[in-house]
Amino acid sequence: MQDALIRLTDYWAGHGCLITQPMNTEVGAGTLNPGTALRVLGPEPWRVAYVEPSVRPDDSRYGDNPNRLQTHTQFQVILKPEPGDSQQLYLGSLEAIGIDLNAHDVRFVEDNWASPALGAWGLGWEVWLDGLEITQFTYFQQSGGLTLNPVSVEITYGMERIIMALQGVSHFKDIAYAPGISYGEAFGQAEYEMSRYYLDDADIDTNRELFEAYASEARRMLDARLPVPAHTYVLKCSHAFNVLDSRGAIGTTERARAFGRMRGLAHEVAQLWVERRAELEHPLGNAVVRPVELPAPGELPAIEGHGAFAFEIGVEELPPDVAEPAARHVAQRLIETLGEAGVYDDGTLVDVYATPRRLIVVIPEVAAREPDTEQVVKGPRVQAAYDADGNPTKALQGFARGRGVELDQVRTVTVGDIEYAGFVRQVTGRPVAQVLAEALPGIVEGLRADKNMRWNAPGLSYSRPIRWLVALLNDQVVPFTVANMTSGRTTRVHRPATVEVPSATALLETLRAHGIEPSPARRRTRIVETAEPLAREVGGVIDFPGEHALVEEVVNLVEEPVVIRGSFDERYLELPEPILTTVMKKHQRYLPVRDANGRLLPHFVTVANGDCDHDAVRAGNEAVLRARYEDAAFFFQHDLRTAPLDMKEGLDKLTFADRLGSMADRSTRIRGIAAELASHLDLHPEDHEALHRAGELAKFDLASSMVIELSSLAGTMAREYALRSGESETVAQALYEMELPRSAGDALPTSTVGALLAIADRLDLLAGLFAVGSAPTGSSDPFGLRRAALALTAVMRAVPGLAPLTVGQALGIAGWRQPVEVSDEALAEAERFVARRLEQSLLDEGHPVNVVRAVMPHAGSPAHAERAAGDLTKLLADESFQRLTAALQRVLRIVPEDTVAGYDLALFQEDAERRLHETFLEVQAEMPRYPALPEFTAAALPLAEPIDAYFDDVMVMDKDEAVRANRLGFLAAIRDLVAPVVDWREIA
Amino acid sequence: MQDALIRLTDYWAGHGCLITQPMNTEVGAGTLNPGTALRVLGPEPWRVAYVEPSVRPDDSRYGDNPNRLQTHTQFQVILKPEPGDSQQLYLGSLEAIGIDLNAHDVRFVEDNWASPALGAWGLGWEVWLDGLEITQFTYFQQSGGLTLNPVSVEITYGMERIIMALQGVSHFKDIAYAPGISYGEAFGQAEYEMSRYYLDDADIDTNRELFEAYASEARRMLDARLPVPAHTYVLKCSHAFNVLDSRGAIGTTERARAFGRMRGLAHEVAQLWVERRAELEHPLGNAVVRPVELPAPGELPAIEGHGAFAFEIGVEELPPDVAEPAARHVAQRLIETLGEAGVYDDGTLVDVYATPRRLIVVIPEVAAREPDTEQVVKGPRVQAAYDADGNPTKALQGFARGRGVELDQVRTVTVGDIEYAGFVRQVTGRPVAQVLAEALPGIVEGLRADKNMRWNAPGLSYSRPIRWLVALLNDQVVPFTVANMTSGRTTRVHRPATVEVPSATALLETLRAHGIEPSPARRRTRIVETAEPLAREVGGVIDFPGEHALVEEVVNLVEEPVVIRGSFDERYLELPEPILTTVMKKHQRYLPVRDANGRLLPHFVTVANGDCDHDAVRAGNEAVLRARYEDAAFFFQHDLRTAPLDMKEGLDKLTFADRLGSMADRSTRIRGIAAELASHLDLHPEDHEALHRAGELAKFDLASSMVIELSSLAGTMAREYALRSGESETVAQALYEMELPRSAGDALPTSTVGALLAIADRLDLLAGLFAVGSAPTGSSDPFGLRRAALALTAVMRAVPGLAPLTVGQALGIAGWRQPVEVSDEALAEAERFVARRLEQSLLDEGHPVNVVRAVMPHAGSPAHAERAAGDLTKLLADESFQRLTAALQRVLRIVPEDTVAGYDLALFQEDAERRLHETFLEVQAEMPRYPALPEFTAAALPLAEPIDAYFDDVMVMDKDEAVRANRLGFLAAIRDLVAPVVDWREIA
Repeated sequence: MQDALIRLTDYWAGHGCLITQPMNTEVGAGTLNPGTALRVLGPEPWRVAYVEPSVRPDDSRYGDNPNRLQTHTQFQVILKPEPGDSQQLYLGSLEAIGIDLNAHDVRFVEDNWASPALGAWGLGWEVWLDGLEITQFTYFQQSGGLTLNPVSVEITYGMERIIMALQGVSHFKDIAYAPGISYGEAFGQAEYEMSRYYLDDADIDTNRELFEAYASEARRMLDARLPVPAHTYVLKCSHAFNVLDSRGAIGTTERARAFGRMRGLAHEVAQLWVERRAELEHPLGNAVVRPVELPAPGELPAIEGHGAFAFEIGVEELPPDVAEPAARHVAQRLIETLGEAGVYDDGTLVDVYATPRRLIVVIPEVAAREPDTEQVVKGPRVQAAYDADGNPTKALQGFARGRGVELDQVRTVTVGDIEYAGFVRQVTGRPVAQVLAEALPGIVEGLRADKNMRWNAPGLSYSRPIRWLVALLNDQVVPFTVANMTSGRTTRVHRPATVEVPSATALLETLRAHGIEPSPARRRTRIVETAEPLAREVGGVIDFPGEHALVEEVVNLVEEPVVIRGSFDERYLELPEPILTTVMKKHQRYLPVRDANGRLLPHFVTVANGDCDHDAVRAGNEAVLRARYEDAAFFFQHDLRTAPLDMKEGLDKLTFADRLGSMADRSTRIRGIAAELASHLDLHPEDHEALHRAGELAKFDLASSMVIELSSLAGTMAREYALRSGESETVAQALYEMELPRSAGDALPTSTVGALLAIADRLDLLAGLFAVGSAPTGSSDPFGLRRAALALTAVMRAVPGLAPLTVGQALGIAGWRQPVEVSDEALAEAERFVARRLEQSLLDEGHPVNVVRAVMPHAGSPAHAERAAGDLTKLLADESFQRLTAALQRVLRIVPEDTVAGYDLALFQEDAERRLHETFLEVQAEMPRYPALPEFTAAALPLAEPIDAYFDDVMVMDKDEAVRANRLGFLAAIRDLVAPVVDWREIA
Repeated sequence: MQDALIRLTDYWAGHGCLITQPMNTEVGAGTLNPGTALRVLGPEPWRVAYVEPSVRPDDSRYGDNPNRLQTHTQFQVILKPEPGDSQQLYLGSLEAIGIDLNAHDVRFVEDNWASPALGAWGLGWEVWLDGLEITQFTYFQQSGGLTLNPVSVEITYGMERIIMALQGVSHFKDIAYAPGISYGEAFGQAEYEMSRYYLDDADIDTNRELFEAYASEARRMLDARLPVPAHTYVLKCSHAFNVLDSRGAIGTTERARAFGRMRGLAHEVAQLWVERRAELEHPLGNAVVRPVELPAPGELPAIEGHGAFAFEIGVEELPPDVAEPAARHVAQRLIETLGEAGVYDDGTLVDVYATPRRLIVVIPEVAAREPDTEQVVKGPRVQAAYDADGNPTKALQGFARGRGVELDQVRTVTVGDIEYAGFVRQVTGRPVAQVLAEALPGIVEGLRADKNMRWNAPGLSYSRPIRWLVALLNDQVVPFTVANMTSGRTTRVHRPATVEVPSATALLETLRAHGIEPSPARRRTRIVETAEPLAREVGGVIDFPGEHALVEEVVNLVEEPVVIRGSFDERYLELPEPILTTVMKKHQRYLPVRDANGRLLPHFVTVANGDCDHDAVRAGNEAVLRARYEDAAFFFQHDLRTAPLDMKEGLDKLTFADRLGSMADRSTRIRGIAAELASHLDLHPEDHEALHRAGELAKFDLASSMVIELSSLAGTMAREYALRSGESETVAQALYEMELPRSAGDALPTSTVGALLAIADRLDLLAGLFAVGSAPTGSSDPFGLRRAALALTAVMRAVPGLAPLTVGQALGIAGWRQPVEVSDEALAEAERFVARRLEQSLLDEGHPVNVVRAVMPHAGSPAHAERAAGDLTKLLADESFQRLTAALQRVLRIVPEDTVAGYDLALFQEDAERRLHETFLEVQAEMPRYPALPEFTAAALPLAEPIDAYFDDVMVMDKDEAVRANRLGFLAAIRDLVAPVVDWREIA
């Protein structure tokens, strides 16, 4: 291992990095070392590499856990500004420590990093070596609350993991640290003893004192304008906090307060550092990126007749959900541009391809140039252009001179209805190459994703850095520049190779010749067609329809899918299946292999990127899975030793949110909310009992080791552990269902008990967080309230037993149980928020917008709203319904909003009035109490004709004020009769 | 610089070192990292190398000082057990960082290391590169109060110094840290800001709290038996203490208490670590040294007639005062051995040589073998050997059988006066080779110095490791083994070369052929003869007689003296000369060059070891001197800004000793003691005034930057600064003289005022430290009390004005001023201690032992004792004195110690009695009050004859008890008369 550290040090020193020492106080990660935390700020260039033994008291395991240490070794690299080729540099460092890149499957898998505590975030990847995460690779965008300019690349190697993989050992203690000495021999005692300190023996009062002393010293140093010692004390603060935390000494309030304090100090340190460096006039110089001097684009190529155009945008690995839509977007923009220029025929098929590293659009046929056009240029009005003698005035002479035309070219042109002196210019159409050269920069600059980053490319902001551009018109380059790139014909294939593309039509075949499959569909097919026989070889199948989402993801994680089957020890099959599949699918993107009955087999299929040594890659992936399963088995066995109710005590330690207490408090509230909601329902006594018990246990599994490790197993583990500890099936199922749906499209609760807990959960979230002002803003929704609201409406729609409940009522129940005051405004805002989510989901389900708007009066009862929308959609085609609607809309249009229903029969003057009134009384009498739309329509239909007649005969807005008011009061009564059903005004 | 760190890391990794990271809490030195502090303990093998940024708040200089940083970079190597070739390994590491060992002068210069605070010490060297100390190289002997077995080698590189020298820059900020970035650019801001923290801004109360919190956490971890976290907290404690100290916040009491506490904790940590490792069964194995299996010594060589013998003991660099005496000792032992064996003729000249790396004895002529001898073997007594018939008894038969002789060989042998049956055996003398082979191991094992160390060689303990043995009898090896070495004919010359020595007589020429000059005398001559012309070239001379001690040292620092002249900037000549010469001579071992008037010239002469690039070595040494002078000039200018009385306030911060207060307290006591002593003397009023003023200032210069840096300038700087601030010449001189003598043979005070302060200083030291039980024990004398006692007697002997004072009285005056109770026993012990030092110095000055013993009754008045010794030595040859002495000794011999003087004239019975009594009365009457010995002798001489007559005629021990008692009482009166003069019994 020390050899690897030396080689990495050597390698990065050779690439211009300053080599520094670890921080001389305990830090949790290399990022906290001032060599990163402070140096990424400000305009000065900086390249550094250092080892950082990273101390995480919470990871203390007495040295017993094979993969977890209280101090693990990070190797940290900062490249500022990002140099444009940092991925390649990084791959070089892997080769330097002996990793054969041709044999192994090294991949950049989307992983973004954010530390709200540090006001820091970045976009990037975890780097996988045969499925093992060995490095965090981030384009650092913000630190200490300050936006970084220039952007730094941060590369953090997890040394123990890398070395365990390279040496093929399964416990960190077995790492050969140096010749003849193992990691355990060298550091085993320290690992044990420091674990003892952090977990058992650290004095809590003393560490509290330390925390305070450090914080006050940091404060003082900020006041003295000394960011370096201030930063040191912030780090010490943070470590003292971590010690207290691992000793279980941090309560909810204390945690929130401590975080706030540290965050505040860290932000001030960052600001002060930036100021001080400016005062020192940036001793290391100024690296703020300025536009690069690019070569002038070459001559525009000309083509005859028609030509083919190919456009490739080369990027660093995009997240899997970004590439395909982005490629389609580019195609759309291109078609629009070319269409407007008249060089593209709508009927032409456009080929759109995407891989993680490239967006490709190929248009087989574009016209050689735009059609020629005439341009009318207008000058002064005719009256002002010629004097009484018909001679050109000075105004006209000036116009002609200014536009460079002779007076004899001037004629009269008519624009609008006015005559001007002017002329018509013949405009020659631009060559298609020019059209493209002018449009393509904007298309590149216009690329945006949900999360965008900046890099060393002025004017660009995208999901990941754009690195090359191929733009070919037939066999010629369409020359243009954007940011610091020039278009060309050089594409990049599997790293580090580059290839020249001879012509637009050869782009795809060139890529394929080098292994890259640009078509997602073909990659998908290749995966399916090679995975199936591999599964069959071990008597298994892969549930491709069931794994659709995963396959889509994998398709966009590789450019050349290479399918490899691996196995794991059968004994792991004793673990609950969701654990096994969660690890496989969510963490490793492996396809599970099942037998004919759908039961898991001890095999999996992974998809590597490009040619590799299958045995090596298989072995690597198997080792990763083994380690993860070993961990999971450890957690599972560990959890089974604690009864659910005892486990639940651990929720005390889990903070929920500022001012809203711990997860234990939240569990108590959910239980109370569910019970109160149940009191409004007609629940079976057995269900009451189950609800009582499930409420007692609500969310207990969040305190289990397994869920702390794999949070997506929340609920799943609750059911598992509850059953194993003897709880009833109903209770266990309810605990599972209360977490449903976990994402859009997930299963929904089927039992009323589960559904009650599920909505109580979301109601608590909504009421509490709206009360403390944490409603989502813009794209920021840290507590997932949008998802919660959607889940709430989905469950209320799906579970018939909940029908009597309304959102407003339920939020009110949740509201009064919050530990903070919940204002009526907050509740109303939450209710509107839920309604908007319902509206959105009904639209997403395909209901026309007018239907959805019309049923929104039922938003408080989502099930009702859903049914109404369905009914309304059907009725829209019905002629009598149309008549009724039209009639009612006439009523609604004329009655002001604030008109109160009420009328005096004596003031009715016309027959039509009286007839409508009679019908109204009949309809009112016949109307069921809570009519669904079809019932209502049937009952109300008689109104249509009298209403129409009324409006034909009666002048509502009579001059006599009393008559007018009486008529409006009567129409308002009709309005009120029909109002609860749908919002008739919205029905187009 | 980072390149050098990488190369060192690489190098030591390649030599089996574990590479670890710096400590993740602030440490003052790499030694404190557990990789050293704990790992050197116990039997486990350990090889480690690491970088250690060492934080010393006290060295904070805001980055302004070119050579001093609050954080400097150590590179630390531990080799455990010491491998036997660590010096060579180390030299290899210098080559690895690009130092050309052939061009430069690299030397191992004695420097021992001890940290009483850590209970740690070791012997070793500072390594010099062209005069610059670049590395501390130590054989670690004890740590945490525990003796180390096996012994570790600790190598600590001072990286900034090395790099500044390699890069030829004169300010650390100018070091090229990495390509394109300087040390100042990379770390300048941190250096400034952390200096601000340590010197100005650290909160004192907070850091006190931290100290307490850390100490209590360390205590707790010890109780929990967790040495690793305990050690961490001891380090944190130590850093908090250092911060407080650099903020000037540590008072005397606090300092002593804090040190005591940290020392105690550190010792407990060490013990606990050893216990814990034993409990863990020493995971790294057991490296305790076992005797090496050595090849059996070969056949003993035989020689004909006479032969030459050469013996070389090869060592790692001995301290300069060790080599020559050691070589003489070996010669002495050899001569004794060979003399006893009769193979060595007393008249034969023995050649004795020594260099730092070898002790050599060559005996040109030894006999081939011991003479043959007869051995008498006695059996039973004759009576028991034969029966009445003259036949052999069973006893005789058994004896003969047992000794393997026939009965006819048995004869009568006489031993003492008794006749035995026995026989005479002819013993053939051993060959000289055998004599040597049997004796040499003991001679090697018997080598001892004042300070001895152990290394990886069982049974040996010496000043530095012994590494090779050459033993040649003519051209053959005298084979023997000792510890893990076998004798041979291979010697080592300049590293790394070894040479075969063909024969005993060729040893010297072989060495000389490879540059080594074994003879100190020749090396001395070579230095003088080459240095003189070099000095002449610049119009100067070297005061060789005056620099005798320095030349002797230099002679024993090199094996091949190469004299090089260097220069320094003339402007440094403005500094006081003692500063310049102290730096040159004491620190750098340079010979100053002076003009004809004895004034310094801006040149110096240094002596390199062996061939080198003179220009490079000159430039290196000049740079070192420039840096030191630059520092000195800085300190000097800095000191001049503070008046002496203000400077003295700094003494508050300097601890003196546990329970005895600060140096300020000590200064106050010295002033008081001197004043009270003066009141017993007849002092001139001007002297009283000067004493008053000098007392006020006593030791103020200890707080000056210059003396803190160069402690040997204490007194010298006091005089300099006092004069420059306007004090009188008398006061200034007194302040200088109070520090005299600084070492044995140094100048002594000449003024009474200076002398009073000088003895007050030593009296305070003795009274105080004897009172607190810190009297020297064995070879341990940390406070230099032996030196103090010698100084006290030397000054009292030398300065006539002090004659009225006695040691006992003066100690009493010093005693009551101590802040602790000083018991009478302590004072008496101190007085005896002083007397023994006086005794020793009189002996050393050549007085016969009987004379010295005889004058010891005057030890309380050293001047008197000295005079008495001189007188007595002269009188010993005087016949009448001899008679008197003989007579008095008769008296003294017969009178029991406890007899009280007193007699009754009436009981006198003999004439002789009465006659003696008359003479006694006459002598008593004539005797001066305080007679010197000659006066006493003259006066007492008449007693001689009557005493002799008395003993001829009078039986003192008369049967009549009354008479006997009367006679003894009378003789006791004579005894008491003569007792004060000398101890007559001691005069042989």
